[in-house]
Amino acid sequence: MIPRELSETESMKLLASTPLGRLVFSEHALPAIRIVGHVVDDGDVIIRTRPTTTALAPSGTVVTYEADVIDPHTFLGWSVVVTGLAEWVTDALDVARYEEMLPRWGAAVADQVIRIRPHWITGCEFAGG
Amino acid sequence: MIPRELSETESMKLLASTPLGRLVFSEHALPAIRIVGHVVDDGDVIIRTRPTTTALAPSGTVVTYEADVIDPHTFLGWSVVVTGLAEWVTDALDVARYEEMLPRWGAAVADQVIRIRPHWITGCEFAGG
Repeated sequence: MIPRELSETESMKLLASTPLGRLVFSEHALPAIRIVGHVVDDGDVIIRTRPTTTALAPSGTVVTYEADVIDPHTFLGWSVVVTGLAEWVTDALDVARYEEMLPRWGAAVADQVIRIRPHWITGCEFAGG
Repeated sequence: MIPRELSETESMKLLASTPLGRLVFSEHALPAIRIVGHVVDDGDVIIRTRPTTTALAPSGTVVTYEADVIDPHTFLGWSVVVTGLAEWVTDALDVARYEEMLPRWGAAVADQVIRIRPHWITGCEFAGG
């Protein structure tokens, strides 16, 4: 299994190819992770999560988002990690549009749509050697 | 898709059933995530990762560890999250034993074996509704 670094373009294309990923953030000064559904829109990662139980401020919090597809038997696949500012999406038209695009994952009621603007993008492909 | 909370026992059993998971920690004050291989040994989560590029102190750092198996089409599956103190395993016999048990994932050279003692264990099953 040989890890190969992916370009930002390759990484974002892979991220857009899968519906689920993991939001990584600080909660009560502890590292926290939550599985959410996502879509990629014009380079931004759009997710939906419960705002009351997260430490995500409406005005923006730096978070990390990860998605991967790895075969548990061969360990071949890829992993993409982006870090950037996560902001609540408040524009009603944007919210409605993203609600349509987002995968039907988790409770839709009282969830907040959040836009992550990737600042750092890294990806790794695990290929056969 | 109906989320169901899992007991600690169910959660640890599922965690032990899969070879890969995600180490979540703080690195340079930013949320960081890295895929690693793991085994569960007597209730502890044993992983192997690169010490020089992590913020894991030999004496112990609080980290979160996540593993999941979720079908990307049906969204059915489970996710387990444990948080606890991560310590470097320094006993040579323990290191040798864990090296045997750990999945062959990533570069073995210069990797550090780390023991996470779960303090909080949560798990969720996503079942058909």
